[in-house]
Amino acid sequence: MSAKAPIDFYFDFSSPYGYIASTQIDAIAARNGRAVVWRPILLGVVFKTTGMAPLPSVPMKGEYSVRDFARSARFYGVPYAMPKQFPFNAVQPSRVFYWLSGRDADLARRFAQAAFHAAFPGQQDIAAAEACAGIAATLGVKREETLAAVNDPAVKEKLRTEVDAAIKRGVFGSPFIVVDGELFWGADRLDQAERWMKTGGW
Amino acid sequence: MSAKAPIDFYFDFSSPYGYIASTQIDAIAARNGRAVVWRPILLGVVFKTTGMAPLPSVPMKGEYSVRDFARSARFYGVPYAMPKQFPFNAVQPSRVFYWLSGRDADLARRFAQAAFHAAFPGQQDIAAAEACAGIAATLGVKREETLAAVNDPAVKEKLRTEVDAAIKRGVFGSPFIVVDGELFWGADRLDQAERWMKTGGW
Repeated sequence: MSAKAPIDFYFDFSSPYGYIASTQIDAIAARNGRAVVWRPILLGVVFKTTGMAPLPSVPMKGEYSVRDFARSARFYGVPYAMPKQFPFNAVQPSRVFYWLSGRDADLARRFAQAAFHAAFPGQQDIAAAEACAGIAATLGVKREETLAAVNDPAVKEKLRTEVDAAIKRGVFGSPFIVVDGELFWGADRLDQAERWMKTGGW
Repeated sequence: MSAKAPIDFYFDFSSPYGYIASTQIDAIAARNGRAVVWRPILLGVVFKTTGMAPLPSVPMKGEYSVRDFARSARFYGVPYAMPKQFPFNAVQPSRVFYWLSGRDADLARRFAQAAFHAAFPGQQDIAAAEACAGIAATLGVKREETLAAVNDPAVKEKLRTEVDAAIKRGVFGSPFIVVDGELFWGADRLDQAERWMKTGGW
């Protein structure tokens, strides 16, 4: 039997539901014999296509969402706190991610996990390149290299290409999980995504 | 021990996720010792408050949602088909519901279930008073009485009052489930709503 195709995990670094899913997705995939390709995107760019707005800015839905973020995190047993600045711009951590992924996909994933944990339970501001360089440094990456990478035109272009490709594929929120071409939106679709991995559809 | 408070189940008759939740909510509540108060609302009125739009009208999200409605129904093992006219105006079935609920809450619930099944697997147009009178007739309600009821000012006012009260409470979508004052939005929050019934919160 040939190996099963990897699944794609799309997320925005400023998305609480993306963070929650990030704490579950590797284990779900692993127990179904799948690898996971992590793919940060930028919801701000996506929203220009859909006309959607960040959750906290929508009347009623905003207040509900803030409560649901924390309640859902507790439901999954995941440590969570709302960043002081929210939503924040995820361009810099996303650039760092794609720069690292060109060297070592596992290192890039560990950077993403560290950045998510710095932002959500940690309430640290991860929007700035300096902050991202500090996080990468904890994984053994030299600060100067990270600070140079976020200004590298090739890295900037890689992020733009990834976001454009995600939108073309139908990704319009965070998280999105793609299993053998089937799209699932939301941390609350992890159960359906897993069943799709097990069964190939229904 | 005193009896546990009933839970509230808010839905719009034209909402596929409301329909899906309607097939699950009574069993979930019953196994946790709860009654369910069914409360139809009108998303069109709610959207005027939030600025939100019907799912199918949002680029990308619209196409995804149509697929997710059917996939989620199959996931729950619920028969489903998209009504030919969608979304549709739910004023008339909602009026019939509240009129019947003033006589017999169980009859009103059976009307709601019959209307949902007519619309979703059945693809019947349930927006018109005539259609609603036909559905109520299968439950032994005289057609002329239903047709008179939807033009009764007291019935119209009851629906307006219910929708306004729902909005004041924070309901902005379909379905919403309220357990001891805690709001849960979406068919994909049935699991959290049930845990809240069991545990009183987390």
